[in-house]
Amino acid sequence: MGEKDFSDRALTLVGDDSLSYVSREAFRAVRQAVTDPIARAGLIADLCRINTLFMIMQAGSGHIGSSYSSTDIITWLWTEYLRDPNGPSADADTYFSSKGHDAPALYSLLIAMGKLGFDLLPKLRQLNGLPGHPDVSTPFIAANTGSLGMGISKAYGMARANRFTGRGGRIVVMTGDGELQEGQIWESLQPVANERLAEITVIVDHNKLQSDSAVAAVSDLGPIEDKFRAFGWEVRRGDGHDFTVLRDTLAYFDTVTDKPKVFIADTIKGKGVSFMEGLACGDQTYHFHAGAPSLKDYGAAARELIARVNARLADLGQAEVTLTSAPVPVRIAPKQPERLVLAYGDELLAMARQRPEIVVMDADLLSDCGIEAFKAELPGRFIECGIAEQHMVSAAGGLALGGMLPVVHSFACFLSSRANEHIYNNATEKKKVIYTATLAGLVPGGPGHSHQSVRDISAIGAVPGLVAFEPCSEREARLAIRWAVEQNPGSTYLRFVNVPLDLPYAVPADYTLQAGRGAVLRPGTDVVIVGYGPVLLTNAWKAADELAAQGVSAAVIDLPWLNRIDEDWVRETLGRFPTIVTLDNHYLEFGQGVMVAAALARTGVRAAVVSIGITEVPACGANADVLAYHGLDGPSIARTVMQAQAPRLRQGFGGAGKPQASSPKPQA
Amino acid sequence: MGEKDFSDRALTLVGDDSLSYVSREAFRAVRQAVTDPIARAGLIADLCRINTLFMIMQAGSGHIGSSYSSTDIITWLWTEYLRDPNGPSADADTYFSSKGHDAPALYSLLIAMGKLGFDLLPKLRQLNGLPGHPDVSTPFIAANTGSLGMGISKAYGMARANRFTGRGGRIVVMTGDGELQEGQIWESLQPVANERLAEITVIVDHNKLQSDSAVAAVSDLGPIEDKFRAFGWEVRRGDGHDFTVLRDTLAYFDTVTDKPKVFIADTIKGKGVSFMEGLACGDQTYHFHAGAPSLKDYGAAARELIARVNARLADLGQAEVTLTSAPVPVRIAPKQPERLVLAYGDELLAMARQRPEIVVMDADLLSDCGIEAFKAELPGRFIECGIAEQHMVSAAGGLALGGMLPVVHSFACFLSSRANEHIYNNATEKKKVIYTATLAGLVPGGPGHSHQSVRDISAIGAVPGLVAFEPCSEREARLAIRWAVEQNPGSTYLRFVNVPLDLPYAVPADYTLQAGRGAVLRPGTDVVIVGYGPVLLTNAWKAADELAAQGVSAAVIDLPWLNRIDEDWVRETLGRFPTIVTLDNHYLEFGQGVMVAAALARTGVRAAVVSIGITEVPACGANADVLAYHGLDGPSIARTVMQAQAPRLRQGFGGAGKPQASSPKPQA
Repeated sequence: MGEKDFSDRALTLVGDDSLSYVSREAFRAVRQAVTDPIARAGLIADLCRINTLFMIMQAGSGHIGSSYSSTDIITWLWTEYLRDPNGPSADADTYFSSKGHDAPALYSLLIAMGKLGFDLLPKLRQLNGLPGHPDVSTPFIAANTGSLGMGISKAYGMARANRFTGRGGRIVVMTGDGELQEGQIWESLQPVANERLAEITVIVDHNKLQSDSAVAAVSDLGPIEDKFRAFGWEVRRGDGHDFTVLRDTLAYFDTVTDKPKVFIADTIKGKGVSFMEGLACGDQTYHFHAGAPSLKDYGAAARELIARVNARLADLGQAEVTLTSAPVPVRIAPKQPERLVLAYGDELLAMARQRPEIVVMDADLLSDCGIEAFKAELPGRFIECGIAEQHMVSAAGGLALGGMLPVVHSFACFLSSRANEHIYNNATEKKKVIYTATLAGLVPGGPGHSHQSVRDISAIGAVPGLVAFEPCSEREARLAIRWAVEQNPGSTYLRFVNVPLDLPYAVPADYTLQAGRGAVLRPGTDVVIVGYGPVLLTNAWKAADELAAQGVSAAVIDLPWLNRIDEDWVRETLGRFPTIVTLDNHYLEFGQGVMVAAALARTGVRAAVVSIGITEVPACGANADVLAYHGLDGPSIARTVMQAQAPRLRQGFGGAGKPQASSPKPQA
Repeated sequence: MGEKDFSDRALTLVGDDSLSYVSREAFRAVRQAVTDPIARAGLIADLCRINTLFMIMQAGSGHIGSSYSSTDIITWLWTEYLRDPNGPSADADTYFSSKGHDAPALYSLLIAMGKLGFDLLPKLRQLNGLPGHPDVSTPFIAANTGSLGMGISKAYGMARANRFTGRGGRIVVMTGDGELQEGQIWESLQPVANERLAEITVIVDHNKLQSDSAVAAVSDLGPIEDKFRAFGWEVRRGDGHDFTVLRDTLAYFDTVTDKPKVFIADTIKGKGVSFMEGLACGDQTYHFHAGAPSLKDYGAAARELIARVNARLADLGQAEVTLTSAPVPVRIAPKQPERLVLAYGDELLAMARQRPEIVVMDADLLSDCGIEAFKAELPGRFIECGIAEQHMVSAAGGLALGGMLPVVHSFACFLSSRANEHIYNNATEKKKVIYTATLAGLVPGGPGHSHQSVRDISAIGAVPGLVAFEPCSEREARLAIRWAVEQNPGSTYLRFVNVPLDLPYAVPADYTLQAGRGAVLRPGTDVVIVGYGPVLLTNAWKAADELAAQGVSAAVIDLPWLNRIDEDWVRETLGRFPTIVTLDNHYLEFGQGVMVAAALARTGVRAAVVSIGITEVPACGANADVLAYHGLDGPSIARTVMQAQAPRLRQGFGGAGKPQASSPKPQA
């Protein structure tokens, strides 16, 4: 069948209103029909690319570029090289990806191989589906990754465990190339070499792009091969899309028995779809790192992949692949969402124009931290550190000692934990540093627990002098960074939710920030719900609506201070309510709620106190599902409040419609 | 003057009952009399060694070996090379030590140079004296260090700040060699090279020993020069005790203007005193890493140094150096102290004999973690990771995935923070890992805030499924590790105080561990003091004695659970007291006290609640002074309780001698 014929047919399959995938039968047919391992791997890889794309379109997000650059490698590994990979036998080989965000590619392959159920294909990033980053709860996933740099250390531990328990098996770890900026990679190389753990092979998916920029532009890696060699590793480099190279390199590695090996695989980010492959000419930004492509791009990509597969099948005298279609998922976008991080970045830039001491630092998460405009306008005061959070934070300390005001950016999950000791070290120098931690909280729920930062208030909450603050609206975001720069003499940790939301509330018109004091967003008499940030407060509002329908008058208070509380404010404002509910977009342990409850005890406020927060490893899934699962959506909060109310009503604490406290006025 | 004459005289100066030091006048005399820079630097270095030893003897602790290996380097830098080092001029050079534990050597030199007051000489590790690790509050100290691996990143920040502000000046950073095991070192090298920050010079004090073992035995560094070169640095290597090599290398480095430079200085740990120099023949343990030497060793060392100085002065035709003597400080040792960490290690070893799945991991703090006996008896199940906490914890995750039970050791300050994200990552895999974190809390107060772990409960308290526990006695330490291994299906963080103490209490005879429930150590009626660990509970006991003398009956409760609380226990046991005092050997923010207070609010217990804990960066000093400074010694606790009692008495909450609650029976 010629190209044209296929295209016509593809148009009916991959149109504007449907997505296509390759069924397991179609995979089986190809595997049986094609006997040459090289040709077969190429076909399976491209068929997997079709399904990976389908999965990401279904999920609405996922890392295409990195999945595609690694697809050929994992296809060869899993279908031709590894023995009983991640299986139960005593000499089973182990494979996992340290970067982890190429998970869709591996899922796609595991589904094709029948190792994961085909029903999981549309369940990427869904509750009880396939997590955004690998998790050992999924069959054939060997390690939890998603936070970068840990993989070689984990492999070291696995290899030592194998030796302890008498198991055999090789261990193959995939890393990114941007990931090599993480110090732990180098920390882990030497012990593996010193102990001559030749069963470990690392494959660097060297696609030269990290997030949406060239690795060389972010933080050039220098001579990678020399670096690995200096750390005692056997090094080979070659084309990571050439199956003969993969075959020969791995065969060679099996002959090296006195040292660990690393294959620097030259790959192309987005490999397999022409317009997704690497940086477009003259472009400095890669557009297919994360997130689902547009439907138009999806269609073009799927058509290209299908065309190539069928052309190859035709060359091999085989029938074209059978595709199955599914409808495009419908997603409801917020109407007029507030984008706190962008507002923050805009306000920071406005201040930086006037304040030459402000320096912005980033760890390869530019666009998610609202600082693209800053970099464009003030590139001389923008420092891209790459995936090197520890270096970034200690460097910020050096900048602060040198008289600058560094504003440090990363995701909350990484900034608060990977650089935890470094934030503390800076704090002991008592110079001012601002830490801006985005992607905080339970949602987006798609990336999974490596990225859901629900532990950071605890992790940095006791750093001396560091005030933690989470704004709930664009306006409060602007106030927050202005307060951090202009008013707070010490250091600030600004915590941001990245999900754009339609907000049902606004902070009071005359609102000013006063440490440890909240603002009443919605008056009420029976219950007060205290929280922070747009996710909690939007759902508190929804809960208050539901409670109102049940005759319970619930106030909603924005308390953006995460580790500071004003006991006078607690007495005056919270002390009026018979029931006090705290919400945490964070674990219950050592979140804001425990601080509020402790303050109630210290101030002698007598009330029924209920704390709602996260109590287990966060679930991965669609935002609404994840919030509901953890009891943090409006209906769940309302239910919990009603349960807490009921016995109190019986005990005569005052009831719905019988105000025990006057409705507090909006205040700061 | 001949050797013999000097020795006789030295015997009268450096005897069994006095310490000797070199006065500033004596330094001045040498500096004026000796004009050859090389000879002068050698003399000053040895004179400084005398004073460094004096300081460490005065303090009772301090790092001699590392101070001595770096003394020649810093002497050359500060007296011959650096321009206005750490001074105010626009082109002042900057120097700091990234390893930081060589601080006594630098202090000694700064005092000799008149940059620090001579009155500080006897005040190493004293309150308002010279901190155990560098702190910018001390004049001419450029950065806070003591946690390893941060220095090159800090230098990067300082260099960038200089460029932003138009200042000149070179930046010289000293690192250790064991320190090169830290991943952050390698994380920081590439950005410095990529930006061609030629103003930065790193000097590696390559003394081949870390803590008390050979670097090569702990985690060999491989070809260090190749490694730095592969990361883009200009590398030279040479004798770090040869002033002509130092002079020529630094002069050469000044001609290299397109890249940063590193000098691998081959040095000898303990250099300058024959019996402190490196490992003794056939010995695998270095005996002069930290801690003051015996008085006998002190005398021999001082005599050797003085003899050499005077011999050199005699060769130069100069008078011998004048020494001043001071009495040996008197220290009161505890009589029958409990050593929790040793008891823990003993119990762990006992279990490991029966349980082949137990693997012990260490990050170069073997002797401080109570696992020397384990290593000696079960070397095959002991993994020394070196100064590589991130690698160690991720490797533990790999071991756990492979079916082993890793027990991971380091100081609490490093384990909880440097490996913070890694502990979380392991937790999400839901395999069992035990983290043993020693040197927890405010004391010993000598090392300073880099080592005083008063933030770790917060830092790891919200790791899902991780139970944090601090034992208060040898018996509870044994119970704790046994519970962690045998009873807790999940992971445990064991927090240990290392200070040996005479304990006034014992846990009840029938005591068993029940999550979230405490044990009454001392009954009482008016007040209950709740705490954990030997430091808090010993001081709570002392406070209770003082309170008893004032007519207030104070109970003392051991609540070893740091992030778990049983609300029934709170109601039953704490609910009986009119005044509840929580103690934290930790910051008030997100310590145990806030958990207890929050539980009081949630359970509706009505009482006066007072929380005592740390509220600022920990002070450095003698243990008793530091505890008093932070309000955690017995008298301070008693005072705070009395203040909390007083208004309550007036408000009719019940008073001293009028029991409001029956005295609870000892219970678990």
